[in-house]
Amino acid sequence: MSQAPHARTPAGIPEMLLAGVDHEALEQKYVVLKEACTHFLGYPVNLKHDYSELARFLEFSINNVGDPFQHSPIHLNTLEFEREVIECFEWLAGGAPQETWGYVTGGGTEGNMYGLYLARELLPDGMVYFSEETHYSVTKVLRLQHMPNIMLKSQPNGELDYEDLEASLRINRHIPPIIFVNIGTTMKGAIDNLERIRAILDELALTRHYIHADAALHGFGLAFLDDPPPWNFKAGIDSLSISGHKWLGSPIPCGIALARRQHVARIARSVESVNLRDTTLAGSRNGLTPMILWHGLRRHGYHGLRTMVADCLATAEHAVHRLCAHGFAAWRNPYSPIVIFPRPPLPLQSRWCLAPQGALTHLVCLPHVTPELIDRFVDEYVASMNGAPTNVR
Amino acid sequence: MSQAPHARTPAGIPEMLLAGVDHEALEQKYVVLKEACTHFLGYPVNLKHDYSELARFLEFSINNVGDPFQHSPIHLNTLEFEREVIECFEWLAGGAPQETWGYVTGGGTEGNMYGLYLARELLPDGMVYFSEETHYSVTKVLRLQHMPNIMLKSQPNGELDYEDLEASLRINRHIPPIIFVNIGTTMKGAIDNLERIRAILDELALTRHYIHADAALHGFGLAFLDDPPPWNFKAGIDSLSISGHKWLGSPIPCGIALARRQHVARIARSVESVNLRDTTLAGSRNGLTPMILWHGLRRHGYHGLRTMVADCLATAEHAVHRLCAHGFAAWRNPYSPIVIFPRPPLPLQSRWCLAPQGALTHLVCLPHVTPELIDRFVDEYVASMNGAPTNVR
Repeated sequence: MSQAPHARTPAGIPEMLLAGVDHEALEQKYVVLKEACTHFLGYPVNLKHDYSELARFLEFSINNVGDPFQHSPIHLNTLEFEREVIECFEWLAGGAPQETWGYVTGGGTEGNMYGLYLARELLPDGMVYFSEETHYSVTKVLRLQHMPNIMLKSQPNGELDYEDLEASLRINRHIPPIIFVNIGTTMKGAIDNLERIRAILDELALTRHYIHADAALHGFGLAFLDDPPPWNFKAGIDSLSISGHKWLGSPIPCGIALARRQHVARIARSVESVNLRDTTLAGSRNGLTPMILWHGLRRHGYHGLRTMVADCLATAEHAVHRLCAHGFAAWRNPYSPIVIFPRPPLPLQSRWCLAPQGALTHLVCLPHVTPELIDRFVDEYVASMNGAPTNVR
Repeated sequence: MSQAPHARTPAGIPEMLLAGVDHEALEQKYVVLKEACTHFLGYPVNLKHDYSELARFLEFSINNVGDPFQHSPIHLNTLEFEREVIECFEWLAGGAPQETWGYVTGGGTEGNMYGLYLARELLPDGMVYFSEETHYSVTKVLRLQHMPNIMLKSQPNGELDYEDLEASLRINRHIPPIIFVNIGTTMKGAIDNLERIRAILDELALTRHYIHADAALHGFGLAFLDDPPPWNFKAGIDSLSISGHKWLGSPIPCGIALARRQHVARIARSVESVNLRDTTLAGSRNGLTPMILWHGLRRHGYHGLRTMVADCLATAEHAVHRLCAHGFAAWRNPYSPIVIFPRPPLPLQSRWCLAPQGALTHLVCLPHVTPELIDRFVDEYVASMNGAPTNVR
């Protein structure tokens, strides 16, 4: 298929509506995608998964509309799977079962939108604080929801600049703060220090506040480490967004929005036509991703997931060592599968699907990224950098 | 699986993480869903579809992040399929190829959110007008986006009350109007009259205005009728939301957001890390639904879709006749596969997945709803109503 506008018949009808299914195009696409999987390092998505057992459910049109914890009049739902998944993520996120609520979202953006929506409803006069290393979608969400906000400086490692936070809060003590915390920034995998943030709030007597955590990638991994930094409901956050497709892998992007249950009542509305509490942001929600998450969580299990996370962090450390051994300034933040290093020339960047930011790029060590793949990449990287190590940090 | 909170081990770990995949639960769910499909009348989703050719793509983690008309650095995408689908829907919606823009959404709510977001950015001081029969998600979206709004009366058939619109506009002529039009209301399938609405805007010299059309279900069908009422870009709308899973059927809810291209530039931002124009509301977007829509559109084709729509409207007419023949006040709006009739007792309502609204309910004649299924339903309905016809309208 070309990238040019597609043809229409003289009567104006798109030719695709007269051509039938192009089986050859599907076949070619399958081959292209298969090949693309062999060089996928730069985005936080685990490509190693097997949900073939669920393929037959494509036969149905499952719809998990509304609140997952209520009875649905639409019998074509998988709400009991969704509830199990939510309860599992509640545990991951340190939430007490009776005090947290959640639902399976279409991805991290929806989870952040949900948390910020709750924050705005609770603190309509609030001001949002977030760091410059925050995911680009957050400024879009803030604009969408008309939320006044201040972008704070980040430290070189990607972590929030706490002095900037304190100074900014200090001159706005009359405005209740909504702190948007990164539990792992997108580019550098830096985890904002919740203890320090709460100490600043205490120091300034800002008792009326809201903390939302974007734990898109890192939240899932932290839950399977022995001694993680404070990052979840136990550390005093009010809501959380975690992606489902990143560590576990999923053919469909998805995520989980979690929040303190008391906050959610604020936006619940009764809607007679679906006979459901309208507590979610999306209307129709697909019923496949709850099954996918359920399947992935159960297939790996607690011990499998602990091993998976430990292995990935070891692979990331391996990548740092290999790059540093060649004189390149590679590094990573603690607890993160993300390795940051100098950006290579465009052909190599494109070949390995690397995401650039200025002079830097990164690779994300999720289960499909093996030490052997790292070695193969490092060899190509060293060759493409032409033996000229750089020290950009 | 029970509806009660699930068990945890003494160490607090959810038992599902130690139990492995419950193959029996999946088997049972498959049987339950299969059975549920045989009595599904009340929601606008076509259950008759076959995407088994696409099942093998579940192997991948496809992500169509960003603007579908730009090159993506993430090679695991199906943007060329998405572009073909968008161009097909542009044609459906009477948009000129160089003047409209769109993307595949997660469903109708996102499409409406997108259109209203564009409207607010273009007319930040605008007032939204929408009828009381508008889908419940719209008030949620308006609240989310902080958009001042006026809910208008509807006529008994579900159509907008134009006198109320005119009177409301007349006393707010200093505020640019954003008209949210229903191209088929959710409950009654009523199509708001765009010619009449535009005449009112002309009459009041409200040249600075925005019209968004929620064509969730009906838009798709209207495109395949010979002489539809004005409903799309040709009738002067600025943006449109159509569901993808309703007429075509899809295992994953989806939709298409379309808008005049000039409006979209307003919210586009360049984002280096994904190297993409950030024109969509969602971040990560699944790459399966574009393939599903592509497959469905091509499989049915222009002539197949014309026949499909005509057959469904004939089935709806059949349902009206059968119910009326038994003395029940069944009726439908022109061009709509939705049949409205008095609400039956709860067991029958639940058995056939009927959506109630006050004393009414409706059934939606999409391809899986055959005349034979209607006959079977009407027999049960007549029995459950105990021979006591009502005339609630």
